[in-house]
Amino acid sequence: MATIQEVAKYAGVSVATVSRVINTPDKVRKHTQFKVQNAIRELNYEPSVLGRSLRTSQTRLFLVLLPSISNPFYAQIINGIQNKAIESGYNILLCETDSDPAREVIFFNMIKNKLADGIISMDPTVNKERLIELSTKYPIVQCSEYAKDNTLSYVTIDSERAAYQAVKHLIKLGHKKIGLINFDKKFLYASERYRGYEKALKEFDLEIKDDWIYNTKHLNFESGQQAMRVLLNQADRPTAVFAVSDVLAVGALKELHINQLRVPEEMALFGFDNIEFSNVVYPPLTTVAQPMYDMGSISVQMLMSKIRGEEVESLVLDHHLIIRETT
Amino acid sequence: MATIQEVAKYAGVSVATVSRVINTPDKVRKHTQFKVQNAIRELNYEPSVLGRSLRTSQTRLFLVLLPSISNPFYAQIINGIQNKAIESGYNILLCETDSDPAREVIFFNMIKNKLADGIISMDPTVNKERLIELSTKYPIVQCSEYAKDNTLSYVTIDSERAAYQAVKHLIKLGHKKIGLINFDKKFLYASERYRGYEKALKEFDLEIKDDWIYNTKHLNFESGQQAMRVLLNQADRPTAVFAVSDVLAVGALKELHINQLRVPEEMALFGFDNIEFSNVVYPPLTTVAQPMYDMGSISVQMLMSKIRGEEVESLVLDHHLIIRETT
Repeated sequence: MATIQEVAKYAGVSVATVSRVINTPDKVRKHTQFKVQNAIRELNYEPSVLGRSLRTSQTRLFLVLLPSISNPFYAQIINGIQNKAIESGYNILLCETDSDPAREVIFFNMIKNKLADGIISMDPTVNKERLIELSTKYPIVQCSEYAKDNTLSYVTIDSERAAYQAVKHLIKLGHKKIGLINFDKKFLYASERYRGYEKALKEFDLEIKDDWIYNTKHLNFESGQQAMRVLLNQADRPTAVFAVSDVLAVGALKELHINQLRVPEEMALFGFDNIEFSNVVYPPLTTVAQPMYDMGSISVQMLMSKIRGEEVESLVLDHHLIIRETT
Repeated sequence: MATIQEVAKYAGVSVATVSRVINTPDKVRKHTQFKVQNAIRELNYEPSVLGRSLRTSQTRLFLVLLPSISNPFYAQIINGIQNKAIESGYNILLCETDSDPAREVIFFNMIKNKLADGIISMDPTVNKERLIELSTKYPIVQCSEYAKDNTLSYVTIDSERAAYQAVKHLIKLGHKKIGLINFDKKFLYASERYRGYEKALKEFDLEIKDDWIYNTKHLNFESGQQAMRVLLNQADRPTAVFAVSDVLAVGALKELHINQLRVPEEMALFGFDNIEFSNVVYPPLTTVAQPMYDMGSISVQMLMSKIRGEEVESLVLDHHLIIRETT
């Protein structure tokens, strides 16, 4: 591989000029830029990212923390992040934390050591104290998640209101016995969606029955299926179920098929997230759409503003109900 | 944050000793290790990854290249990679290339600049020449993909044989008109699965009809659905379809539901990959299981061997047919 000295010689300019063309092309005349870029191409020169990052303190990389890539919910957010990042001249590295604090530390160290310029965290299990502390020194944005005390910038939706509207929709359809498949309430969104469920039932004087609420330990198809199995095994069972995640709802739907229950006639089902699958299952799932792509691209815009040292306002985006055939 | 000098002073040892405890603890007496680790904890010292990587030439990070995280096929492979990597004291960064050569270059530069110790590539659209060239200098393994000329180490399955067995299974069930939903044949696995399909039909003297073969441009649900729509719109249509990917098969299944065709009575369907979702759709999809988790963990073992400078043999793992209810 050619060195920067060889590029300078080939282009007939100084090493400093080559460096300027690479790092701050705006400060170099077009003609000189052209000569240097031509030399870089001809000699197949590749500037050292490491050297460059030490010189300019910019890696043009940022980290995206997510708990697990197997939840398809993240795929569309990442699309939004990716496209906006590239538009801004950045690349992203996806960091699967698996909700393991030890692994987070590795990624946090990358930013401390200037191997990345910023972090977008989508991990609900992230160590909030550490993240808040880090955010005082480095550009950090939360996407889809947020810290309750508002110290970190975020882009998210109003989970409580969305859950309230979903359950109210089931009530308007005539359901009086409405079950809930929830995730561990230690996660903020799970406790918020629970509150929305509770609020709707209370408003219409409907019973909130512990037996009709199942909190799963994991966020996967099997857990949703298991939850529906438990709900179906009751003498007095609900006629509709709200699941706080499409992954759980899709698993629950499988259990309804196994028991040959007609959907929505014998059991209605409302999901949450509008993952791509939700429209592929049969019957297509009624769900809450989060503006996932927009959440991703907006979180990049917020991060870019932070990198430029600007003030950033947190945002709560609109959701909407997608009524399909399971209700 | 404390400096290494402060840690040395606090522990009453030299800076070199602190460095040894961090980088080569085995070479330091237990008692000294204890004193230094205690000082590191007390002073909240965090060794610079960058400094450390420059000193030891080890980042304990490697890159996993994949075209897109929205294909659930990759989720389980990544589980296998992740778990084995952690077991080996490594962390991974997921690099979504979006099949864009410009983006690959960024990730290739990371390894050239020693920001990562190795690469596992799962990208079928990766620039093979570049990857082969890079593999002469850096530890690189291909997972699920492989270069035909055998220059790169890989772990994969025998796609042609798997497709042959799947189609033969349909033939044994009495089908004589068998369609194929394939992906762009520029991808090696797509052309291999086509060859398996062709081989089975030829062996049983069945017709290979161009009208019954649909090559999709994208690998997503919509493309599978679109493909099935085209196959159904023929006067003389197939009674069974083999799709080279579960994502395509699941989309095709949706189109069968829309047309209220009974599966498998009026149309049988065979997928490929055994993604989690294939067992959640209704009816559950018959498919080919690749040992995805094993492919992931074995690719890490191979990469570790390469990092240690050992010779590595490429591997073709066993697949098997999972007969569910769509055939």
